[in-house]
Amino acid sequence: QETFDLDSNPHTRLNILTGEWILVSPHRTKRPWQGKLEDVSPDNRPAYDEKCYLCPGNSRADGDHNPDYKASFVFKNDFGALLEETPLASINEDDLLVANNQKGICKVISFTPKHNLTLPEMTLPEITAVVEVWQKEFSSLAENEWIKYIQIFENKGEIMGCSNPHPHGQIWAQSDIPLEIAKESDRQKAYYAVHKESLLSAYLKLELKKQERIIFENDHFVVLVPFWAVWPYETMIVSKRHVTSIKYFNAAEKVSLAEAIQKLTIKYDNLFETSFPYSAGMHQAPVNNGDNPEWHWHMHFYPPLLRSATVKKFMVGYEMLANPQRDITPEFAAKKLRELPVVHYKAEQK
Amino acid sequence: QETFDLDSNPHTRLNILTGEWILVSPHRTKRPWQGKLEDVSPDNRPAYDEKCYLCPGNSRADGDHNPDYKASFVFKNDFGALLEETPLASINEDDLLVANNQKGICKVISFTPKHNLTLPEMTLPEITAVVEVWQKEFSSLAENEWIKYIQIFENKGEIMGCSNPHPHGQIWAQSDIPLEIAKESDRQKAYYAVHKESLLSAYLKLELKKQERIIFENDHFVVLVPFWAVWPYETMIVSKRHVTSIKYFNAAEKVSLAEAIQKLTIKYDNLFETSFPYSAGMHQAPVNNGDNPEWHWHMHFYPPLLRSATVKKFMVGYEMLANPQRDITPEFAAKKLRELPVVHYKAEQK
Ligand SMILES: O=P(O)(O)O[C@H]1O[C@H](CO)[C@@H](O)[C@H](O)[C@H]1O
Ligand SMILES: O=P(O)(O)O[C@H]1O[C@H](CO)[C@@H](O)[C@H](O)[C@H]1O
Repeated sequence: QETFDLDSNPHTRLNILTGEWILVSPHRTKRPWQGKLEDVSPDNRPAYDEKCYLCPGNSRADGDHNPDYKASFVFKNDFGALLEETPLASINEDDLLVANNQKGICKVISFTPKHNLTLPEMTLPEITAVVEVWQKEFSSLAENEWIKYIQIFENKGEIMGCSNPHPHGQIWAQSDIPLEIAKESDRQKAYYAVHKESLLSAYLKLELKKQERIIFENDHFVVLVPFWAVWPYETMIVSKRHVTSIKYFNAAEKVSLAEAIQKLTIKYDNLFETSFPYSAGMHQAPVNNGDNPEWHWHMHFYPPLLRSATVKKFMVGYEMLANPQRDITPEFAAKKLRELPVVHYKAEQK
Repeated sequence: QETFDLDSNPHTRLNILTGEWILVSPHRTKRPWQGKLEDVSPDNRPAYDEKCYLCPGNSRADGDHNPDYKASFVFKNDFGALLEETPLASINEDDLLVANNQKGICKVISFTPKHNLTLPEMTLPEITAVVEVWQKEFSSLAENEWIKYIQIFENKGEIMGCSNPHPHGQIWAQSDIPLEIAKESDRQKAYYAVHKESLLSAYLKLELKKQERIIFENDHFVVLVPFWAVWPYETMIVSKRHVTSIKYFNAAEKVSLAEAIQKLTIKYDNLFETSFPYSAGMHQAPVNNGDNPEWHWHMHFYPPLLRSATVKKFMVGYEMLANPQRDITPEFAAKKLRELPVVHYKAEQK
């Protein structure tokens, strides 16, 4: 064989948001799998579970009782990784042992009182209400001068470390700018300085022209598999308008975002006819940290499943020690997701 | 509380090898765990399994038959992620879609003919023989001018994506320098330029003085939990002599390395009285890429278990989107590992 082909030859691709390369091995899906099979969590939860610390009226670890809420419910994580009361300090021994204090607030958001739902099974108004809460929380957390970054995210599914199946997400707000955000800031800043346009605006234009990795778009958002995706069915939701954070979404954009999340997560569930596990979260400009005109709001979805509801991609050995690696191509994943229906398979079966 | 304390306050620590920070939340182990419990693989494998493609005499995917080998056995991976026959090429559209071809060779090393062993259950001469094979393979792969980096590693256990329990490791050799190695090169180079001493030599000296994170040492190697460890019981084996790669280890050093691996992996198995899963691998200087006097050979162990044989640390949501995070402190982990016996619990039980 003599000509280079992204569909069949091993190659590396540049993640323009981080400056890091990923290794793509398109031919490798032929490998038989005799390794670990994941359990599929049973899908027969009740609408209310008296032992769930997120259900309305139940009590939590700190003794508080949840209100009898009707839509979303937000509270401070009883076991947060970050705490507000942390003394200011830093340590540096010969540039070899270096540490800093870190202040923060961790919150939990129950998406709905119904224990047995997930985002793809919620209605558009219900998901829109969640988007509203994200926006409100973002703005009110940002009022704390010492907070520099606010990470909004969701771990869905047991294999993504989610310890309670009640539909919920988290917000971690902290006094420093975390690693992934620092990388994306640098790259977006560098691009913006040269082109006077956000990196993701330019990228979106090119992807919309090519139509190779687009899954769908609506009035305000594009959903695609990035050229540099690492996880098998990794996707990104990007706003068409260049805004730096969720704070600036207007009413129409909030509904559009909810719709994009709904369609994408339904397609995900339909892919292997299973409640599709993922970690998802927004990347946006730091707060209380000067202007960040280069920042372009987007949301990443990192789902681990590779071949079926029970076979995931392992990011282990080579990937941890050397370089992230994927088997199927981003274009193959995009095509698969594009072709899937936007009606949930469970609704179909009814 | 007013004084800052690494044992109880959330903080960040600098990984001096990569320049990246990790978040430590020492107080967070109090969190109850209601999430996923891992399966423990049954520990009753036969010494020979007729269906195993690594056992002596058996046939492999490409139709080849394994020889009737007595120590280690090396062959080219029948489903390698990298291939030698890859056309040279690169793609760049507006700095937005950027890709390069990648050439490579992937090999598999069976550590022993015995299907039912693992490194901690092998004898010192048997492990020394594996070290010899690693050294030989490294040197002979480096004879290919186009190879720039050689990653030697092992995935142990089903939850680390290992698809065959027969004790084995892998070597991926490739035409570019992968991400993690590029980061460690930069940092070691910068330190060496200023101090005329390798970064890890200086770090070892400080750690040996402090004795807070040392697990044990022998004549030629130190085994410790790095100050910036991410995984709960992450460790590093560092050579006392500053050598750039495994190529330079003499006979005594090879036995010492085997002994360090043996002791460390026995302690690992003893920690939760289970066959302890991990990904482990050496980091060393690139090859065919000029002099790299700054590089200091070391070996990382990244094990996922956190609380028991069935509860692991999930690097998900916040960790994927923002920043790696750990719960127990590196000092706590080091103390635990230091105090464990170096006799395997299964040998004890006999
Ligand atoms: O090559 P194996 O053992 O089939 O596969 C395993 O190790 C590889 C290298 O770390 C990973 O890319 C795979 O995801 C993992 O399942
Ligand atoms: O906060 P949770 O849901 O208990 O915990 C989960 O999400 C966190 C944030 O991604 C991770 O640090 C934990 O490892 C994971 O189990």
